[in-house]
Amino acid sequence: MAESEFGLIRKFAGLTPRAGRLKAGIGDDAAVIKSGKKGFYELFTCDALVEGVHFTVKDKLFEVGYKSVAVSVSDIAAMGGLPAEAVVAVGVSGRISDRDAINIYKGMLKAAEKFGLNLAGGDTVKSRELFISVAMTGLVEKNRLVLRKGAKTGDAIMVTGRLGGSLENRKHLLFRPRLFEARYLTKRFVIHSMIDVSDGLAGDLRRICEMSGCGAVIYPDKVPVSGSLKKYGREKSFHRAVTDGEDFELLFTVPAKSAKRIENGMKKFFNLKATEIGRIIRGSDVLMEKNQKITALNMDGYKHF
Amino acid sequence: MAESEFGLIRKFAGLTPRAGRLKAGIGDDAAVIKSGKKGFYELFTCDALVEGVHFTVKDKLFEVGYKSVAVSVSDIAAMGGLPAEAVVAVGVSGRISDRDAINIYKGMLKAAEKFGLNLAGGDTVKSRELFISVAMTGLVEKNRLVLRKGAKTGDAIMVTGRLGGSLENRKHLLFRPRLFEARYLTKRFVIHSMIDVSDGLAGDLRRICEMSGCGAVIYPDKVPVSGSLKKYGREKSFHRAVTDGEDFELLFTVPAKSAKRIENGMKKFFNLKATEIGRIIRGSDVLMEKNQKITALNMDGYKHF
Repeated sequence: MAESEFGLIRKFAGLTPRAGRLKAGIGDDAAVIKSGKKGFYELFTCDALVEGVHFTVKDKLFEVGYKSVAVSVSDIAAMGGLPAEAVVAVGVSGRISDRDAINIYKGMLKAAEKFGLNLAGGDTVKSRELFISVAMTGLVEKNRLVLRKGAKTGDAIMVTGRLGGSLENRKHLLFRPRLFEARYLTKRFVIHSMIDVSDGLAGDLRRICEMSGCGAVIYPDKVPVSGSLKKYGREKSFHRAVTDGEDFELLFTVPAKSAKRIENGMKKFFNLKATEIGRIIRGSDVLMEKNQKITALNMDGYKHF
Repeated sequence: MAESEFGLIRKFAGLTPRAGRLKAGIGDDAAVIKSGKKGFYELFTCDALVEGVHFTVKDKLFEVGYKSVAVSVSDIAAMGGLPAEAVVAVGVSGRISDRDAINIYKGMLKAAEKFGLNLAGGDTVKSRELFISVAMTGLVEKNRLVLRKGAKTGDAIMVTGRLGGSLENRKHLLFRPRLFEARYLTKRFVIHSMIDVSDGLAGDLRRICEMSGCGAVIYPDKVPVSGSLKKYGREKSFHRAVTDGEDFELLFTVPAKSAKRIENGMKKFFNLKATEIGRIIRGSDVLMEKNQKITALNMDGYKHF
């Protein structure tokens, strides 16, 4: 900004420019911003869904609308926070009827109600293909913020639910972001790092390792595979479980001594499976250990490009 | 939300749900949200630009990126606020090179720097057509918040700059949102209502009247017409000035006694024309008065659908 414009801000604005408010964010599920609310950070994230890429015209648009909000709720949850407000930009093509558009908004409202946030406004524009872009703010207590970086050597690597197959079962649309589960975790336990599994376990675990400067070893027999994948046999179903996208389960690392209590607590309060699937190690390799044989986990998650 | 989920929130969240935080917004340039910062409201808005609708592939992508951020700055400005953070979702088609994508981001960063906000993060997705969706938060002192509603009978209707022709001159891309000008206005004067002229004066004035429950009368000879339109003759250029979109000037109403001081102040501090173009009247009609003849202002601004 030019010096003269700084001068104008000072003269007429009565607010200092916002530079320096950003605490973290690049590479995390949401940006972390210093907040006016004492003891809290603001979170800010956005996600877009595009026809033909993230959904097809055969999907129910109510469910597409629901998912567009739920995806951002999942991002906020993975940071340890609660969602606050969302604004939505919808690109509406000529093929979309008024009723379709209403169904999209109904789905959004359903998710907003379910997870306690406000749909605060939006922009509707013409477009050749349907897209929905949701931006969401959230709040997190400073001592409950969890980033991707923070994993420590010896940490247990844990994951909620079961992985893989959500796209083929179309469970990816009406999925339930692990908001309350994440809030439970950050309230009762020390969580060193966390991410939501949107691009597949293998890729998202690698992100935690890269951001934390560490490696990981996974025990393949421990990875919880979705029941619908079992028909593919052990090897293929494992491959699918660690590479399929759109699971929206929580992947997190904790001091190893907490793992058992977390498994029990998740079962008790949420009737949800939580599983220790491996350990954080020194170095930068992401490995598998099976029958005392160690190999590289050479599988990547969903690639966007 | 189901009762049981409220229970879960109370048990694990430690934050009350956000319901009831929303103060205003539907129909305004940005949503107004109760803030954690004492004496301030948060603002939250979003806008999307779509290839083939808001810009063409012939436009410079640096300028398209700049505009995508500047449009939301203009919304925040029209509420009397200052922008804080933005997140961006970009749908990238196969026709876009890496260099193109970098140019979009460079344009965004330029606007962010110019108007003192942080680009906090974003989402890049595959798409068949290029779109850019920007969501922006802002802050405004409670006593400086200006809505579309609030115009009062007898108010002077004022507009900054000159209107019309910005699309054909492609000035609409590198336009300068009237951020500092709006902050000056809300600091030094009582502003009853304000909007940024994005869909044409006629349509946007109608919005102020509808939200405020009032009518308006415009003096056509006073409406400041862009120099580039003068070649079309008086009648056609006036028509263009009140219906062309993408001006991004401020349209606002003030107690009539302030109008002259505002014109002088805008000239002195910003070297910018500000013009009283009419008055707010009782009723709901939007009229023109010329040579003591009153007719309806039967022109609409840019129609999105």
